[in-house]
Amino acid sequence: MQFPSPLTLEETARFINAKFIGDADFTITGINEIHMVSTGDITFVDHPKYYNQALSSKASVVIINQEVDCPIGKSLLYHNDPFAAYTSLVRKFMPFVASTASVSPTAKIGEGTVIQPGVFIGNQAEIGKNCIIHSNVSIYDYTLIGDNVVIHANSVLGADAYYFQRKPEGYRKLESCGRVVIQDNVEIGALCSIDRGVSGDTVVGKGTKFDNHVQVGHDTKIGSNCLIGAHTAIAGVTCIEDDVIIWAKVAINKDLVIGKGAIILATSAIDKSLPGGITYFGSPAIEARKKWKELVMLRRLPELYSKL
Amino acid sequence: MQFPSPLTLEETARFINAKFIGDADFTITGINEIHMVSTGDITFVDHPKYYNQALSSKASVVIINQEVDCPIGKSLLYHNDPFAAYTSLVRKFMPFVASTASVSPTAKIGEGTVIQPGVFIGNQAEIGKNCIIHSNVSIYDYTLIGDNVVIHANSVLGADAYYFQRKPEGYRKLESCGRVVIQDNVEIGALCSIDRGVSGDTVVGKGTKFDNHVQVGHDTKIGSNCLIGAHTAIAGVTCIEDDVIIWAKVAINKDLVIGKGAIILATSAIDKSLPGGITYFGSPAIEARKKWKELVMLRRLPELYSKL
Amino acid sequence: MQFPSPLTLEETARFINAKFIGDADFTITGINEIHMVSTGDITFVDHPKYYNQALSSKASVVIINQEVDCPIGKSLLYHNDPFAAYTSLVRKFMPFVASTASVSPTAKIGEGTVIQPGVFIGNQAEIGKNCIIHSNVSIYDYTLIGDNVVIHANSVLGADAYYFQRKPEGYRKLESCGRVVIQDNVEIGALCSIDRGVSGDTVVGKGTKFDNHVQVGHDTKIGSNCLIGAHTAIAGVTCIEDDVIIWAKVAINKDLVIGKGAIILATSAIDKSLPGGITYFGSPAIEARKKWKELVMLRRLPELYSKL
Repeated sequence: MQFPSPLTLEETARFINAKFIGDADFTITGINEIHMVSTGDITFVDHPKYYNQALSSKASVVIINQEVDCPIGKSLLYHNDPFAAYTSLVRKFMPFVASTASVSPTAKIGEGTVIQPGVFIGNQAEIGKNCIIHSNVSIYDYTLIGDNVVIHANSVLGADAYYFQRKPEGYRKLESCGRVVIQDNVEIGALCSIDRGVSGDTVVGKGTKFDNHVQVGHDTKIGSNCLIGAHTAIAGVTCIEDDVIIWAKVAINKDLVIGKGAIILATSAIDKSLPGGITYFGSPAIEARKKWKELVMLRRLPELYSKL
Repeated sequence: MQFPSPLTLEETARFINAKFIGDADFTITGINEIHMVSTGDITFVDHPKYYNQALSSKASVVIINQEVDCPIGKSLLYHNDPFAAYTSLVRKFMPFVASTASVSPTAKIGEGTVIQPGVFIGNQAEIGKNCIIHSNVSIYDYTLIGDNVVIHANSVLGADAYYFQRKPEGYRKLESCGRVVIQDNVEIGALCSIDRGVSGDTVVGKGTKFDNHVQVGHDTKIGSNCLIGAHTAIAGVTCIEDDVIIWAKVAINKDLVIGKGAIILATSAIDKSLPGGITYFGSPAIEARKKWKELVMLRRLPELYSKL
Repeated sequence: MQFPSPLTLEETARFINAKFIGDADFTITGINEIHMVSTGDITFVDHPKYYNQALSSKASVVIINQEVDCPIGKSLLYHNDPFAAYTSLVRKFMPFVASTASVSPTAKIGEGTVIQPGVFIGNQAEIGKNCIIHSNVSIYDYTLIGDNVVIHANSVLGADAYYFQRKPEGYRKLESCGRVVIQDNVEIGALCSIDRGVSGDTVVGKGTKFDNHVQVGHDTKIGSNCLIGAHTAIAGVTCIEDDVIIWAKVAINKDLVIGKGAIILATSAIDKSLPGGITYFGSPAIEARKKWKELVMLRRLPELYSKL
């Protein structure tokens, strides 16, 4: 990213509260990650393994967490958390447009929260502090959102449970009266859907992050600090415990428990509960190392047939 | 769900037209399913198998379809259809916000239909009676929607067919001039897309219910009383007959016929037409019981190799 | 499609600039593809293989690219590009509603572009000439869109990268400062998401066409004249070269290169880079003809077991 208006080295040091080595009036013109930098840019490095790469890159200024020698023609900023310093610089230049949206008069919205255009917020919904709700998000009645939550554009929170009873004259619907509850520090990608509970709540725990196009069924509970990959579909009344990592395009059936710290590889399909702490793969999914053995054997079948 | 204002037993009996056993002035404070109830709640039971569970639950009031003895400290409501009675109570307390939306002056909207904020309705589109079109739904020109239809938030009806012709200079697009037709009593989940026909109509039949993120290609016909699971993609010019049940994340190719009453298990991929009345699984899908045998054999391969 | 107001044969010939055979005052009442026509319709045919079918169909008027004998009761229009002529007739009758939308004052929009209701366009975004941005599309800050681009309803361009760093206290987010860049003549389906780059750009090349529900991760580059099927998910920092064809529901991992002209069949999962010019299938995907052999052998396993 080019800076809309350049910053001097000294101004930058003051802004991120860092000690600097170099010409105080040197003009920084942009900010980029280490593999993308060009002359005039500031970048960051926070691991000794990458110090050399950063210090010999095209970046003019490097934020670093150790006092190393300053290469000729570069400037350094010493900071004990270069990632945080880098992020605060990016944020400084990220503009946003607070705007009107269709908000029920009975909804509550906390301080510092930004609601972008086209957002719909239903009756009795509550949104905490310092959230960003991006454009065209739909939030149904009674949804409860904590603090520091980001919801990306066009996601839908609180649509009705997919819960029908077959009758001779067609399907009858059980009306949902539960809620969606999103805890603090959650980030939800674009175009995700999280259905409300039929009677209880559908919950996404603290610090969990969703990629785009994720679907969560009614009354499902997702723990804290989980990662959920793009296009993953989680059915109703399932429990995903804390620290679970799910890669893209996974399907998880209803009424299951996925144990703490389990890892589910991309495109897997889960049809039974899984103990935590293990990596799974396949459709239906089994332990990943067993699945890989199966795949090797499958590939050796022609040889086997030719032997017989 | 807690009631916004409590109801007495007598008021409730009058509202659902039921006979009651208990204190006419007893105050009901909420409504929940049997496994979620607490003191003060009303619940329902409609099958003798669950009578005991309901009558010994924490619910204070039970809607039941048989005249049983009333347990001490509880009240009963006799009703020949407890599910319907329960649903009408939930509905009584579900508020909604009718609001403005971008509706073409040439579109027609029937009596009792609710159009939520942010909805777009194109030229010549027609929507029947007693529908609910949730927020930020996009309905393209000429779309035809029947009565008692629910479309959940951010779904898209009537986008152009994915239909291109490769030429040396790039792709050329065949402009769509067909419609999307949604028949009575259909429910479409959040974030679904149903493309218009190229020349004919894309049709969703009476009483069919979609979960979220379902995609339907151009000119496809879906019968009545089907269930279509989340993240299912159905290509163009395919025919899904009546009473078909498709679970989540299924892919169905174009130009196929899926016979009446077929059941397709989650994550299956369908690449040829399938006779009705049978359950299918796999990618490519075959009869589910055959696929399960294959999976068992696949798991026995290490044993087989060690024998040789 | 029925014409809103009928056209005479002569008016039609003048509009598409074609020579006609038949009654100049014959009234054309609608337009349809060959397998959908009825009396009064105009249709087109551009390949000798289908001449007979078109000339003996119910269509009253046929646009054709060769001077053949005119069947009794029909009229002909000679045109060297019947597909283009047909398309221009469809377009003539396709109405649209230009309308207000939430557009940042710092965004730029080219001549002839239509922005439908409910669209959000962020700061510094630029949209070229003759584009159609359908209803409820969300376009984040800095997004760059070329000429003649179509974006279908409720798609999201430019949401943040899914890029988090695990820390003892939870995940930290690397703020994105790259852009989404959509080149000329691209068409994006409904409900697609294309994330912005973390530092660089996420690019969709000239003439590429997306079906619905496609997801593209941060910093991914997609070449020109590719086709991307519905529900396909492409992770970050991947390169899809020119002329690649990807069918529905494919998953592609990050940091890969898919070579020019590769074809990936539906529901495949790609976990390593693939040379161009070859067709792939499976999860994980291998050459399609090898995968089909595996599937045949898998099906012969019961026989194999019974032999042993």
